This record gives sequence, structure tokens and C-alpha cells, in this order.
Amino acid sequence: AAIQGEPGAALDDQVASEIAEHPFGTVTFTGRAWKLADVRLLAPILPSKVVCVGKNYADHAEEMGGVAPADPVIFLKPPTAVVGPNAEIKLPANSTRVDYEGELAVVIGRPCRDVPAERAAQMVLGYTVANDVTARDQQQADGQWARAKGYDTFCPLGPWIDTTVDPADLAIRTELDGQVRQDARTSRLIHDVPRLIEWVSSVMTLLPGDVILTGTPAGVGPVRPGQTVSVTVEGIGTLSNPVGLRS
Amino acid sequence: AAIQGEPGAALDDQVASEIAEHPFGTVTFTGRAWKLADVRLLAPILPSKVVCVGKNYADHAEEMGGVAPADPVIFLKPPTAVVGPNAEIKLPANSTRVDYEGELAVVIGRPCRDVPAERAAQMVLGYTVANDVTARDQQQADGQWARAKGYDTFCPLGPWIDTTVDPADLAIRTELDGQVRQDARTSRLIHDVPRLIEWVSSVMTLLPGDVILTGTPAGVGPVRPGQTVSVTVEGIGTLSNPVGLRS
Repeated sequence: AAIQGEPGAALDDQVASEIAEHPFGTVTFTGRAWKLADVRLLAPILPSKVVCVGKNYADHAEEMGGVAPADPVIFLKPPTAVVGPNAEIKLPANSTRVDYEGELAVVIGRPCRDVPAERAAQMVLGYTVANDVTARDQQQADGQWARAKGYDTFCPLGPWIDTTVDPADLAIRTELDGQVRQDARTSRLIHDVPRLIEWVSSVMTLLPGDVILTGTPAGVGPVRPGQTVSVTVEGIGTLSNPVGLRS
Repeated sequence: AAIQGEPGAALDDQVASEIAEHPFGTVTFTGRAWKLADVRLLAPILPSKVVCVGKNYADHAEEMGGVAPADPVIFLKPPTAVVGPNAEIKLPANSTRVDYEGELAVVIGRPCRDVPAERAAQMVLGYTVANDVTARDQQQADGQWARAKGYDTFCPLGPWIDTTVDPADLAIRTELDGQVRQDARTSRLIHDVPRLIEWVSSVMTLLPGDVILTGTPAGVGPVRPGQTVSVTVEGIGTLSNPVGLRS
């Protein structure tokens, strides 16, 4: 669906209009529409791959006890980790510490490979908000991050894809039960969005719907069952997810 | 397609029969068939995810200068890395050393999560052969392995999925231009196939067509343009791929 209305307006004043087919290229509508308050949003995209970037804010690299690498370091989350807004993040019983990581996410709009940074914007469908949920203890134990970041529900995306925002300098904020824990701007990204698209597409072909998570700023910390974590990116919206236990 | 004939028989004596829909569950045929010699096989599956296991043969862990970890360490390759038999492995210009890694691969047949090892065999469609191609220099530089193992063409799979073989003790052999470089048996896997399905499915839901690469034995080494690398798993077949340069 396409969401229409003023950013930040009441849910009753925003409308979800059903898209006839897919969101790539010129969108056509079925004519059916509902108040946003009356719908349950799912993840705005089911990506064929989720490419993530580690340590892309200097202050987060520092809090993790390291320095930011000169080139982007990438890793992958499995598509099965993706959930939408308000879906529960389910903590596995075998981890003693699961952290939120609020991030700006890029949604790719066209198949592409070897894209120069100067042309990267043409390959973008839009932007959404992501939470790169991480079992911190398992990340450290394994060395490789796929398990710690790959659990089902560990990639909340949403609440929708904004197709008009400029990602260069947006406020990004993570709140845990309403308390601000991360507060930064995307202008502090070490490798900005065009550079990340250039880097990732120099390795792997990107397909429509693929998602790039751009990295998290300082302030990561653990979540507990019963809490709610909300990530807001200026000009896009707020992605909120309650936390529960995996059964 | 389904391939029928004696293993190891001449290509003219084996037949590729077209499957009506997908290979999961009871297969139906369209009635069209060709001699295997007259068809070009593509990758036998397009997985939604490729889950790989690091250091799962003790002798390979040793040659990499480490010891095998007590629990499986997993990482992901992007689906865009998958190619079929006889497709060219394309070396990126920015790597000074790209290695073959011959492996047994498991193809999942049913959606599943939290599968105990005792029931793992029920979740398997069959087995194929894989080459976990790796830019060794970038693997070491990044720490995370997604880039080094994620280039397009870095996950040859094939030549087909064998649905009857028992994976417990199969000879696995990698040849470079006809010279044997890896020669082992799957009975030497530290974590066997049922244990790997248990481990991976305790993290992420596995979907039909998802592939698990079980790890490579000792003998990894570099490939150069113009060479051909062939991985054979007893009872399944041989996966051969020429090596070229990425353009």
C-alpha cells in the first residue's frame, strides 16, 4: 500500500492506498483505501537480501572498543529475520544480552552492479527505518555475526518506504520505553549512502527490494521482555517493536 | 528437470525429464525429456538463503592456522552468488587470491524451525555439490566474511540435487585442472548434517530450497583465470566450473 498524509499526522488523518502490483517503477492503485488507523502494516518489503554495514559511525565503533575501518565492512542478515512495525522481537533463550541498533535503511529500486557513487541515487526506491537486533554475547563468541544477527524477528523494517527523502542529513533516534538511547544524524555516517551502494554493488548484484542497513550510532544497549524499542528517522517515520521471548 | 540414469554413465545415456512445477513434495512431469548431453544445466535451486559453516573439518581449521570451534560458526552467502555447473567463476580485479572450497551442500525441502537432529533428515529435499569460492585476502582483511565470499559467481551449485544419497560418509574430492587438491570424506565433518540442521534451524526458519554448505576439508588453494575447478561428491556427481575474470 502507499501511505498518504502529512508526516506526523494522526493515524486517522493518513490513508493507506492499495497498490495494484509492486512498488517499483510507476505505481498503479486498485482504488481501495483505508485509514492508517484501521490497518496493520507488515514489513514494507520482503528483500532477497539484507546487506548490513558494521561500525559506520565513529562513536559506535569507539563504544564497541575499536576504531572504524577505512573501508565498509559488510555482513548479511537472512530474509527470514525481517518483521514489520509492531511485530514482537523474540529473544532466544540461549542469549544473555540482545541489543537494539537503530539504523537508516536503503531500499534498492533497480537491478544494478558496479554503480558509481555519483549514480547511486538512481538505483534507490526509497528509505525506511531498521533495527539491527543483535545477540551481543553470540556476536562476540562467534566472531562471525550471522548467527547473532540472524534470528527470526531480528530485522524489524518499517513503518513504510519514503520515496522522496534525502538521506544525507537526517536525525536518527532510538527510544527504549520512551527514553532516548541513540540520538545522532546520518551526516555522521563514515561511509554515506552513495558510497555504500557503490561498495556493495561492486561485490554483488543488487535486486529490486534488496535492503542496505547503513550502520548504527553510539548508544546501543540491551532490551528486556515487555519493553518497546522505537527507532525514528526524520522525514521517514517511527519503527516500534515490543520485545518478548521466543517460544 | 529430473536427471535419470546410472551415476557416472555417459551423458548420452542419461535423461533430463522436465518437472511440471517445483521439486518439493510429489513431483509431476510434463512428458518432455532430453538427453543430458543436449541440455545446459543451471543451478539446481535458487535458494532464499545460503547458510555456510566455517571450519567444520579439523584438518582445514588447522591449515587456516586455528582450531575448530566447539559449536558450528555460520555465515551467509547472498543468493546472487549462486551459479550452476560450467558457469564461469569470475575473479574480481581487487583480490590477489581467490580460493576454491569444495563442499557437500544440503537442500532443504520443508519450512522448519527448531528441528532436533533426530528429525533433521525429514526436512531435507536432497544433496548437491558446492564450491564456497573465497577471496582469501579480503576474508582476512575484513574479519567478516560476507564480502570475500559474496561476489557474484562465488557459489557454484550442482550439477543436480540427489534425493536418495545418505550424506554420512561420502568421498569428497576437489580437482584443479585434473589434479587432486582436496580428498576427504564427509564422515570427517566435525558437526554432521543432522547437527547442522539442528543448529541453523535453532536460529532461523529454513525454507524450501534453502541451502546449507557443510564446510570444506583441507587442501584449499588459489585459482587462476583459464583453470577449471571440479568438486565431486560420491553418489551425487561432479560440479565443474571454469575460472575467468570479472569484467
